[in-house]
Amino acid sequence: MTYEFRQAALDYHAEPVPGKISVELSKPAETPYDLALAYSPGVAEPCREIAENLDNAYLYTGKGNLVAVISNGTAVLGLGNLGAQASKPVMEGKALLFKRFAGINAVDIEVDTEDAQEFIDTVARIADTFGGINLEDIKAPECFEIESALIERCNIPVFHDDQHGTAIVTAAGMVNALEIQGKRLEDAVITCLGAGAAAIACMRLLVSMGARRENIYMLDRRGVIYAGREGLNTFKREFANHTDKRSLSDAIKGADVFVGLSGANLLSEEMLLSMAPRPVVFACSNPDPEIKPELALAARDDLIIATGRSDYPNQVNNVLGFPFIFRGALDVRASEINEEMKIAAVNALSQLAREPVTDEVLAACGLEELSFGPDYIIPKPMDHRLLSRLSIAVAKAAVDSGVARIALSEAYAPGA
Amino acid sequence: MTYEFRQAALDYHAEPVPGKISVELSKPAETPYDLALAYSPGVAEPCREIAENLDNAYLYTGKGNLVAVISNGTAVLGLGNLGAQASKPVMEGKALLFKRFAGINAVDIEVDTEDAQEFIDTVARIADTFGGINLEDIKAPECFEIESALIERCNIPVFHDDQHGTAIVTAAGMVNALEIQGKRLEDAVITCLGAGAAAIACMRLLVSMGARRENIYMLDRRGVIYAGREGLNTFKREFANHTDKRSLSDAIKGADVFVGLSGANLLSEEMLLSMAPRPVVFACSNPDPEIKPELALAARDDLIIATGRSDYPNQVNNVLGFPFIFRGALDVRASEINEEMKIAAVNALSQLAREPVTDEVLAACGLEELSFGPDYIIPKPMDHRLLSRLSIAVAKAAVDSGVARIALSEAYAPGA
Repeated sequence: MTYEFRQAALDYHAEPVPGKISVELSKPAETPYDLALAYSPGVAEPCREIAENLDNAYLYTGKGNLVAVISNGTAVLGLGNLGAQASKPVMEGKALLFKRFAGINAVDIEVDTEDAQEFIDTVARIADTFGGINLEDIKAPECFEIESALIERCNIPVFHDDQHGTAIVTAAGMVNALEIQGKRLEDAVITCLGAGAAAIACMRLLVSMGARRENIYMLDRRGVIYAGREGLNTFKREFANHTDKRSLSDAIKGADVFVGLSGANLLSEEMLLSMAPRPVVFACSNPDPEIKPELALAARDDLIIATGRSDYPNQVNNVLGFPFIFRGALDVRASEINEEMKIAAVNALSQLAREPVTDEVLAACGLEELSFGPDYIIPKPMDHRLLSRLSIAVAKAAVDSGVARIALSEAYAPGA
Repeated sequence: MTYEFRQAALDYHAEPVPGKISVELSKPAETPYDLALAYSPGVAEPCREIAENLDNAYLYTGKGNLVAVISNGTAVLGLGNLGAQASKPVMEGKALLFKRFAGINAVDIEVDTEDAQEFIDTVARIADTFGGINLEDIKAPECFEIESALIERCNIPVFHDDQHGTAIVTAAGMVNALEIQGKRLEDAVITCLGAGAAAIACMRLLVSMGARRENIYMLDRRGVIYAGREGLNTFKREFANHTDKRSLSDAIKGADVFVGLSGANLLSEEMLLSMAPRPVVFACSNPDPEIKPELALAARDDLIIATGRSDYPNQVNNVLGFPFIFRGALDVRASEINEEMKIAAVNALSQLAREPVTDEVLAACGLEELSFGPDYIIPKPMDHRLLSRLSIAVAKAAVDSGVARIALSEAYAPGA
């Protein structure tokens, strides 16, 4: 990052008012009559209706279109444990993206504790305020315990975006890349560099879509996670294979797929050359990928590479997922975001990339041309079709899997 | 309430979108460059700055203009314990009033617990998200413990509006009413019907402004609270006098002031006639006062009466207080709202009612005339002068009493 860009980012956050989001009135509040409806005495009526039936909160309050973006700041971006307060700009940013891409009202909540149980209790007690909860930037392995406890305790979707958002967008791109390379997920040998929240969730989703666990080699800082290695937590143990591979060089030899959620420049050209023919490389470390695309493509021209960066093709960007997944879940008042809904999002996303883009999309992306192939395996964030495609697919999966409170026809009734 | 009004209130809350507030972007988010500043990678910069110095959250996030309106729904309006979820329309309404009257971004949080310690822990852990916390509709006596524990644990203002908002507006009207009646607070004999959060806070504030505790007779459902009465909690015991008065009829005989925060029609004309000459009656039960003003004034014409209703003169309305008190506190990044700030708000409010009203204020209130006297002892909510008068008075008191993080000149610098 240049000095100028850093200063521009600080200025953007500070001027003309601090922060990035505001709360505005969605109803008239000018006259004394307006205020008598909005507050005492009129407000007693919706209160009574909700006391009689809690679901009436979806009719008379903003709950049904409100998501809380919640963090304790223990894993902020790639910066580490900065503390709850210092994570606020990220959470406000996420709230901004929710509104910008899916019209969802979102507010940030920073929870000042590193204790998983305290975090769980705090969030569970305030959960009814919202229609959904997006957990963010919470370090592994606590994030797994936190998410599953909250899913259990809350009647609304709880979704740790660092896990599932990343997994969904990665899987969508992966499906398309493998298709282009003429490979099947069921047969693919996968090397996953990184064993944090995102990596575990990515591999779990690929497995639930057909990848075989015994074909996956996951590595943490200490190397390959193999069966019998000491000190593995439950989540890593899930991916511990019986293997004598120990290093990244061992693991990547002959692999069809590399997924990097680790650190800059950890993948060498030599390793790349040792992969199987027509490999797929997702080098998603941010801001600097495990290998620069220009280096990778210079080393071998039969690969497809995706990164987390917007200045290369095939950006794996969570904004392709969470706004629309929550939009669909909220539209049918889902009680959770289950595996069916995640896979529906993957399919809608990979499908959209295979369709011809409209002139409108090209203009929004500032591009001349875009067609399905090695340089375009994932839709672009500025593609306005994402909203309806993903949300409806997710909403339908919620209804079909029995976690929706209302029918699709009610959610998307004309005029609704 | 008529059927039509009830229906209008429900429609207002339901249409065209459920609820009353929305979250909007306060910064541009159209182009990829905008998004790179608002989110990754640009957002890392403000995060780093806040990690270095927590006060930087006031510069780079919305914290400094953000208030949480928090309830557990145990004492919703006059409706009782409806539960957390059913209090949401009130909390959203309060958020609407914060924005409408003082430009403050406010979000509601409903905390689903009746346990005071759980409530305290929950709110304390999320407090840093906000610049201030407005507690609302929490039943007594837990509200006292909750508020004082949170004031102790948080570095931002925590203000239970049912207590202090009501107390401040009541005290401001009281000062003016006594002035008109030619009486002094120091000498006034006061009957307080009601012993909940608002009543206790009102009497505490009047005492801190000069009223004598031994001149106050407080009554709960069981009658006069007297020294030695069994089963009194600490808060009621604070107002237990050595007296042989037992009933409201006993207590009100010869009283200069009646403050009602109890229930409809509990004050009879006979009781009113037994009061001292030139009495002051604050019949604040909502929606129906302890005695109707037309009945009271028919019984005796030497009294001044205020109610909680907008359709009579002298409305004691919390909206005259909390938006501007928080505005002042936020403007100087106060760490609390202390007694000095509350009294500054009382004085600014009573002073404003004594000043000639402008044509603009008359127009906003839909009135032909308004001048200080028995029918105008408290400013009108639509008086636009409230904002600057109260906020600056409160901000100044914060600075003078040493609880402000920045100077008055910085808060109100030209262009700030």
